[in-house]
Amino acid sequence: MSSAHQPFDEMPNPNPTPTQVEFSKYSKRVILKTILDREDGGLGLVDQRVVVGGWVKSSRELRKDPPPMSGDRKEDAEVKCVEVFRSKIPFLRTFIQVFGGNTTHTKEKVGSKPALGSKPALSITLLKISDGSSVTSLQIVVDSSIAPASQLMPTGTCILAEGVLQKSSIQGKHEIELKAGKMLHIGIVDQESYPLSKKKLALSGLRDHAHFRPRTTTVASVLKVRNGLNQASHTFFQNHGFVHVDAPIITATNTKGSSESFQVSTSNFSAKEPEPEPASTDDTENASLETIKLLIDEKSKKIEELKRSDSTKEALDAALQDLHKINLLADELEARSKSKSNTEDLFFSNQAFLTTSGSLHLESFASAFGYVYAFGPRFQATKSESKKTLAENWMIETEIAFSELEDAMKCAEDFVKFVSNWVSKNCHEDLHFLSKRGDKAIINRLNSVALAPFEKITYATAVEVLNKVTDTTFETKIELGVALSDEHESYLVEFYKKPVIIFDFPKELKPFNVRLNDDGKTVAAFDVIVPKVGALVRGSQKEERLNYLSKRIEESGLQKDEYEWYLDLCKQGAVKHSGFDVMFDVMVLFATGLSDVRDAIPFPRHHGKLHN
Amino acid sequence: MSSAHQPFDEMPNPNPTPTQVEFSKYSKRVILKTILDREDGGLGLVDQRVVVGGWVKSSRELRKDPPPMSGDRKEDAEVKCVEVFRSKIPFLRTFIQVFGGNTTHTKEKVGSKPALGSKPALSITLLKISDGSSVTSLQIVVDSSIAPASQLMPTGTCILAEGVLQKSSIQGKHEIELKAGKMLHIGIVDQESYPLSKKKLALSGLRDHAHFRPRTTTVASVLKVRNGLNQASHTFFQNHGFVHVDAPIITATNTKGSSESFQVSTSNFSAKEPEPEPASTDDTENASLETIKLLIDEKSKKIEELKRSDSTKEALDAALQDLHKINLLADELEARSKSKSNTEDLFFSNQAFLTTSGSLHLESFASAFGYVYAFGPRFQATKSESKKTLAENWMIETEIAFSELEDAMKCAEDFVKFVSNWVSKNCHEDLHFLSKRGDKAIINRLNSVALAPFEKITYATAVEVLNKVTDTTFETKIELGVALSDEHESYLVEFYKKPVIIFDFPKELKPFNVRLNDDGKTVAAFDVIVPKVGALVRGSQKEERLNYLSKRIEESGLQKDEYEWYLDLCKQGAVKHSGFDVMFDVMVLFATGLSDVRDAIPFPRHHGKLHN
Repeated sequence: MSSAHQPFDEMPNPNPTPTQVEFSKYSKRVILKTILDREDGGLGLVDQRVVVGGWVKSSRELRKDPPPMSGDRKEDAEVKCVEVFRSKIPFLRTFIQVFGGNTTHTKEKVGSKPALGSKPALSITLLKISDGSSVTSLQIVVDSSIAPASQLMPTGTCILAEGVLQKSSIQGKHEIELKAGKMLHIGIVDQESYPLSKKKLALSGLRDHAHFRPRTTTVASVLKVRNGLNQASHTFFQNHGFVHVDAPIITATNTKGSSESFQVSTSNFSAKEPEPEPASTDDTENASLETIKLLIDEKSKKIEELKRSDSTKEALDAALQDLHKINLLADELEARSKSKSNTEDLFFSNQAFLTTSGSLHLESFASAFGYVYAFGPRFQATKSESKKTLAENWMIETEIAFSELEDAMKCAEDFVKFVSNWVSKNCHEDLHFLSKRGDKAIINRLNSVALAPFEKITYATAVEVLNKVTDTTFETKIELGVALSDEHESYLVEFYKKPVIIFDFPKELKPFNVRLNDDGKTVAAFDVIVPKVGALVRGSQKEERLNYLSKRIEESGLQKDEYEWYLDLCKQGAVKHSGFDVMFDVMVLFATGLSDVRDAIPFPRHHGKLHN
Repeated sequence: MSSAHQPFDEMPNPNPTPTQVEFSKYSKRVILKTILDREDGGLGLVDQRVVVGGWVKSSRELRKDPPPMSGDRKEDAEVKCVEVFRSKIPFLRTFIQVFGGNTTHTKEKVGSKPALGSKPALSITLLKISDGSSVTSLQIVVDSSIAPASQLMPTGTCILAEGVLQKSSIQGKHEIELKAGKMLHIGIVDQESYPLSKKKLALSGLRDHAHFRPRTTTVASVLKVRNGLNQASHTFFQNHGFVHVDAPIITATNTKGSSESFQVSTSNFSAKEPEPEPASTDDTENASLETIKLLIDEKSKKIEELKRSDSTKEALDAALQDLHKINLLADELEARSKSKSNTEDLFFSNQAFLTTSGSLHLESFASAFGYVYAFGPRFQATKSESKKTLAENWMIETEIAFSELEDAMKCAEDFVKFVSNWVSKNCHEDLHFLSKRGDKAIINRLNSVALAPFEKITYATAVEVLNKVTDTTFETKIELGVALSDEHESYLVEFYKKPVIIFDFPKELKPFNVRLNDDGKTVAAFDVIVPKVGALVRGSQKEERLNYLSKRIEESGLQKDEYEWYLDLCKQGAVKHSGFDVMFDVMVLFATGLSDVRDAIPFPRHHGKLHN
C-alpha cells in the first residue's frame, strides 16, 4: 500500500518494509509471508486489523476443567487458573483486563462475535497456522466464545480469521501473533481419516497422500525449492538467449525400444503390436479361423454323405449338432477378426509413444534458432525401482548450433553454478528449514558448487583413477567399457572434492546420436557428476554426419523409418551442434538433500497403483 | 566485452552498445542479433573480424558467363561486365580496386583461402543468412574463390563464415554486411528434396515439415512470440507469489470420459478394456475354449467308440485327424488366453490416462500453498477438426485458496493485460514482422487489451444481448442453456469493443467441479473472450462443499471411485478456492494474428499420421 522512501535515494526502494499490512490482490486476506518474513518479524504491524487464512499445523488449548461440584469451588478453581495464566502467559493479563476473569464457556456460533452482554469464556485455543507462503507459522489466539476448540484444533483444519496483530504473548522466536476477533471460515478435519493427524510422518509414508503432503512443512519446502529451481533454470536460459521450445509429448520416434516406452492409444482400440514380435495375434486368429473353416467344409460334406447314405437318424443329428457348434465358433472368431481390423481407425495412424527425450526434436529447432531449450515431462516404462528416476520425469534439454563438446560442457557447468547460486540466495528460508530437519550440508554444498571450477576428466581417466583405489572396495568392479555406477561417481566427486565432468565415453554406453570421436571407439558425450546425487546432467555433441548417423541407427537396432525426419537434419543444412539434458527431479534432490525422487515431485508416477 | 559508462551515472548502463563484437559464450560465433539489432544497425562494428553462422534465406550470384570463343572476345566481355558492375553495384568498385578485373573462375577447396598468387574470380555470391536470433538477416559477400556459389546458394544451406564487417555496399535497409574471408563450414542442401526450396510456402503446407519450418521467418517469429508468452506467464505468476507445481501427465482421474481420453500402456500389454463395454474379449475367448474342449471330449469318446466297434480304418483315421486339428486349435486358444491373463501385470495396476486438465491436482496444492499454477501439456482424443484445439495442448492452470469467483476474474484479467503488454514490449521485432506479413492489427490489439478494463456480463445478459441482434444472422440460434459459439463470442467482443468476461453459466455447460450458485441452476464459472480468438481463459470458483460435489459427480456420470482423493479435499480442511485455465496455444494465436493452432505449436499433434 504505502512504500517507505529513503531520503537521498532517487529510486524507490524495491523492497520496502510497508507500514501497513498489504491485502493479497486475489484472495482478500493478508499473506503470512508479508507479516512473518519481514525484517522486524512483523512488529511494525502491531495493532493492525487483518484477515489471515491457513491450515492448522499445531494447536493447544488452555482451559480450566469444569469444576466437579459447588459454585464456591468453581470460583476457587477459576481464580487459581487465572493466577496461573497471569504468571505464565503475559498476554492473558490484557485479556483478563478487557473481559474479566469469568470462565463461563459460552458456545458461540462460528463466525459470530460474542453476543453483547454475554460472558466470554476463559478457554483459549492457540493455533499455529501456515498458508504455505512461509516456513514460519503464525500463532492465532482464539477465545472459545468465537469458535469451539474441538473444531479448530485438529491438524489440517482450515481457518480464515479476522483479528488484530499483537506483540507475541510468549517469549520465543515469534515477535507477533493474531488475536482472533471473528472466524470467517472453518474447514474441519476428520482426525480418524486424515493421514497427517499423526505427529511425525516419514516421507515414505506420505507418498501415498500426494494430495495432502504439501501441507507438511518439509514437503512444502522441497516443492518450493523445486519452484525456485524452475524459475532459476528459465532465467539462466532466457538470459543467454535460448528460445524455449515445447518438445512434443506424443511422438512417433521411440528411442528406447518398445520395452521401455509407454504407448498412447484411444480407449476403443488397442495400439498395434510392435512389429518385431514373432507370431502376431492376428496370424494366430486367422490360422484358427482357417482350421475351423476346413472343419466346417469337412463336416458339411460328411453330413451330405450321411444324408445320401442310409445312416441312422442319431448319427445325422450328432453330425448336425457338431456342425452347429463349429459354426458358432467360426462366427465368434470372424466377429473378433473384424473388430481387430478396425485398428486402421487408430487415432494416430501409426504407433504413438510417450516421449523418452525431447532432444531429437529440439535438435531440429537448434538448426533454426541456434540456442534452444525444452522443459517438460519425459517417460520411461522401466519397472525397476530407482531412487533417481520415475515413470514420469521432468527434464530440461538444451541444444546449441555451431557448438562442440567443450561448448556444451562449459554451458552445463555455468548452468549448474548459476542455479545453485540462485536457489541458495532466493530459497534461503526453505533451505534453512530443510537443513535443520535433514541434510545439514545443503547450503554449503550449493555454495561450493556455485564457486569451484568443475574437474574435467575423460572416461578413461576416471576408470584409471577408480582402478587405483585401495581405500574402498566397490561392489561392482570397474573396467574400461563398463558404465560407472553410483558408488564410482560418488568416489570421484569425493576424490576431486568438487563436481566432475566425465567425457569421451565408449560409444556403447551412450545413445546412437552422439558424435563419434576420431578414435572410432569413443563418443563426444559427457556426464556432470555432483556431490550427493551423482550424475545430474548428461550431454553430448550430436552426430551431424549422415553416414555415421545412419550406421549408428543400424547398429543400435532402431527402426530406421522412424528416424527419416531426423536424418533429414544431416541432409539439409547440417550443422555441428551439442547440448545437454538436466534431470530436473534429481536437481531437486541435489538442492534439498533428499534421497528419493518420489519426494521431490508433486505426483510421483511409478510401477504399481496410480492413486490420483 | 566492454561496456560504455555514461558520465554522471553511478549504475552501469544495463544495455550498452558495445564497441567490440561479442562472441557468443557457447558457440564460438557472433550472434547476428548483437550486430543487426543494435541501434546503429551494426555500423559501430565496421572493420571488425567476426565469425557468423546461419542458414541461407535467399541468395544471388553476380557473375560473368564464360566467353564462347577467343581470348579477345573474352576480354571484351569481361570489360563490359565490369562496367555493368561498376554502375549498378557500388560495392564492386572497391572489390575491383582490390582484386582487379580478372574473371578467371578458380574453384578453390571450401574452407581454404585463395592460394597465394592465384587470380581471384569475379563471381560473387550474395547470401542473406539468418541464425534465428533476429528477423533481419545479414548479407554475406562470398568470392567464388572461397567457396563455389552452387554449394552456397540453395535456401537452407548452413554456413559458418569468418570475415570482416563492412558498410553495406547496397543502399537499402541494412547498414552492414560481412565480407567473407573464409568458409569454416558448409552444410549443403539437396534442393530437390528440401521442402523450403520453393519461394512462397503457405503455413498449411509447412505443417508436415515441423522439423524444418522454424527456418522460415514467419514460423520463427510465431514461435519466438510463443517463447515470449511463456516467459511473460511465468513472470506474472512468480511476481504474484504463485508456486509452480507440475501437475501429473499420467493420471488415474479421467475427467472427460474414456471416449475423449488417451490411454497409456506399455507395449507388451494392451490396457484393460473400459468396463462399460458389453462382452469382453476374454469372455469370448473363454467361451470358444470351452466349446472346443467339449468338442474334444466328444471326439475322444467317439474315437473310443470307433475303436471298440468294428468301424473301418478310414473312419477311425478321419476321426483321429479331426481330433488332432481341434487339439491344435485348443492349444492356440489356450496359449492366447494365458498371455491375456498377463494384463494383471500392467505397468500401472489400474487404468492410466493422459491428463485432460491439471486443475484437480492443482486444487490439492492450493490447499497448502494458497497460490499455485501449473504449465504443461494436456490431452484430448477428439477427432473433430478444430482450429483452436489439438490432441496435445499446452495449458496454464492456476488455483487460489481463500478466493471466490470475482478474485479469479480479476486475476485472469490482470494476467491477460500483463502478458499482452509484455510481449508487445519485448517481442516487438517479431510482432512487427508478423504484422507486416499478415494481420496488421496485432500490435494495436495487444496494446488495447493491455489497457481497457474488461467488460463483465453474466451469461444471461450475453444471451439477451445476442437475442436482440438485428444486424447479423447467426448460424446457430442462441437461447438460454445453449453454449456460445465462436460467432457469438466475436459478436460480443465487437459489441463491447473490448474483452468480455462472461460469468454465471448454466451448470450443464461447465465441469462437475464448478461451484453451484445459490439459484441452484447456474455455476460460478467464467470465460474471458478476447478479440480475434474468442475464449482464451476459462475459470471458476470450485465446489468446496462435499454434498454438492458428490451429487455433481453422480449427475455427470463419472466414476466416483476415481475421485475419492479429490473428495478428500472437501473433507479435510476445505477452503473456498477459484482459478482459471489459459489455453496457451490459443494465446499464441491471439498475439500473432494466426488462425490455426497447428501453426502456433512446435510439433502439432492431431488425428491422423504422426510424422515425428
